[in-house]
Amino acid sequence: MTGVRESDPTGLHRVLDDRVVLPQAAQRLDTRHALWSDEVRIRVERLNLDAASFRQLERTHTRADGTVDRDALRAEVLGIVASRGKMQNPETGSGGMLVGTVEEVGASSPLGLAVGDRVATLVSLTLTPLVIQDGLAAWDAATEQVPCDGYAVLFGRSIAAVLPDDLAPELSLAVMDVCGAPALTARVVSRYAGATVAVIGGAGKSGSLSLAAARDAGAARVIGVVPHEQEAARLRASGLADEVVLADARDPIALRDAVAAAGGPADVTVVCVDVPGCEGGAILSTAAGGTVIFFSMATSFSAAALGAEGLAADVTMLVGNGYVPGHAEHALHLLRGHDGVRRLFEERL
Amino acid sequence: MTGVRESDPTGLHRVLDDRVVLPQAAQRLDTRHALWSDEVRIRVERLNLDAASFRQLERTHTRADGTVDRDALRAEVLGIVASRGKMQNPETGSGGMLVGTVEEVGASSPLGLAVGDRVATLVSLTLTPLVIQDGLAAWDAATEQVPCDGYAVLFGRSIAAVLPDDLAPELSLAVMDVCGAPALTARVVSRYAGATVAVIGGAGKSGSLSLAAARDAGAARVIGVVPHEQEAARLRASGLADEVVLADARDPIALRDAVAAAGGPADVTVVCVDVPGCEGGAILSTAAGGTVIFFSMATSFSAAALGAEGLAADVTMLVGNGYVPGHAEHALHLLRGHDGVRRLFEERL
Repeated sequence: MTGVRESDPTGLHRVLDDRVVLPQAAQRLDTRHALWSDEVRIRVERLNLDAASFRQLERTHTRADGTVDRDALRAEVLGIVASRGKMQNPETGSGGMLVGTVEEVGASSPLGLAVGDRVATLVSLTLTPLVIQDGLAAWDAATEQVPCDGYAVLFGRSIAAVLPDDLAPELSLAVMDVCGAPALTARVVSRYAGATVAVIGGAGKSGSLSLAAARDAGAARVIGVVPHEQEAARLRASGLADEVVLADARDPIALRDAVAAAGGPADVTVVCVDVPGCEGGAILSTAAGGTVIFFSMATSFSAAALGAEGLAADVTMLVGNGYVPGHAEHALHLLRGHDGVRRLFEERL
Repeated sequence: MTGVRESDPTGLHRVLDDRVVLPQAAQRLDTRHALWSDEVRIRVERLNLDAASFRQLERTHTRADGTVDRDALRAEVLGIVASRGKMQNPETGSGGMLVGTVEEVGASSPLGLAVGDRVATLVSLTLTPLVIQDGLAAWDAATEQVPCDGYAVLFGRSIAAVLPDDLAPELSLAVMDVCGAPALTARVVSRYAGATVAVIGGAGKSGSLSLAAARDAGAARVIGVVPHEQEAARLRASGLADEVVLADARDPIALRDAVAAAGGPADVTVVCVDVPGCEGGAILSTAAGGTVIFFSMATSFSAAALGAEGLAADVTMLVGNGYVPGHAEHALHLLRGHDGVRRLFEERL
């Protein structure tokens, strides 16, 4: 019966659940190799797991002596993909992205891709049909970069970006993975005149791009918040922030006071750290009338909603949408234009 | 040692956890009867549990034959409050609000309350120190309205509204409980010229107020989405919506198509239904450049963020902040000015 289903640009035709849900919410996707006419199949080279997801997997497989059981971690990823037909961490709900080469293009695909294009997918692995065919034999399970042979399917409404020639593929992939953050940061910052912007996790990948995006969008003062001195030194060397301050983002009062001491409260606070419990501090670091953008998948919706209410905080809180038109090009442009961003990325590859 | 802690307007001084967290995130609050100087103590008459929380409790205590074990439900609420010093459902993370009479006002309280004022608290129970002193003997555990004798404490930065004389207290309480939704809806709708607004759950309390708020804020077309014919009839009779459509909000394609048929996609989509899985449909019902406001505590942050990304949807997604300055007065004004809102509320009391 499913063989004659019509395709839907959302990928609905590949959902195997009994209830009608979108691919991202589905328990299981149809990973058949044959394409519907608006689809594209990618030969996968590498998966890039979401940082929060990889950290959760590492915690789960940490032994009593503090070492990580890498074989068990690898087996869990294989198990998830085999049973669900996609890579979606059941705890964090998040996935990641992939890089590969276009293998086949359906006759009515609207994505503009051609066989042989080397691409990164800009939609999450949580909704991408995926088959792993090499048992992840080449992955040491020690980083979220996963060499992988297999195939994946893109829908009519998916997004993929052709990797640029002037940058190493790993670098482009790392940039595109977080490109929604600087794009949305730029859009929000440009609505305030001479904004003070605080980026929590400013030395990280999405954080450093967001600092650069805030600056380019007209921020008058950009503050980078980092958890320890090593990151502070890195961020200072990058020149991306006017002020670099140390604070544990999970400690709301410490965060509030650190941002205040650096020239806050902020008009725009951008949360780029993948640890739970940062909602209260982000709210308290933000001025009345300001905006908090949550990019961390560890964000709790109810903690944010009830936290702001409980603090009588008149702040706008945005769910960090990973899609803004032009986001990949914008992020690559920031990387090319800010040496500090490039250095921070290259150090982390 | 805690006896000499200085008070903080956020209520930090009453957090008993080892880590520094705000009262909302705390496992346990100090419920001591004596006040810090910026606090207010309320003699509690009634708790109003959050709808998502009460429904979760009912599900948990539903027997095999479909009946609900009301005694066990009551015991669980008592257990939560006794162990945590506040009412916060561990599953949903949500609380509710309360009504009572001001019993004592600290010398430096900024809230402007006087002993004897009958008030509703507009901060969540999830951060309000609470002691129940009657074992909830007067509560049948069949509704989220909980008659209760006990006391609660407000902090310097809490909010409480004096109950108006012209409305029944139950009515005022029900309105104030959801007053953040119409206030934020009005603010967002007023940014669009002649907006099309869809309210998912339009016949409910926050939904009907949001419809009225959208209309008063200049919406050109307001669409109410409801799950079944009974609610549709109610909403039609209220006159609050230009179009009333039936759809299961958890079915993204059905919701998208229903809103489109009623004149959508919407510029502003307001999610007021307390069921999980509405993120995808809300996103698909919203036009590019539009805004989704999530008021349901059942919203999943990652489902919203990854859903929009996966659908390449350029929509702004707001965490429904329960606090907007003047929200209680605004909601009471809507109730007084829209007979349809008032009837829907009175039917639900």
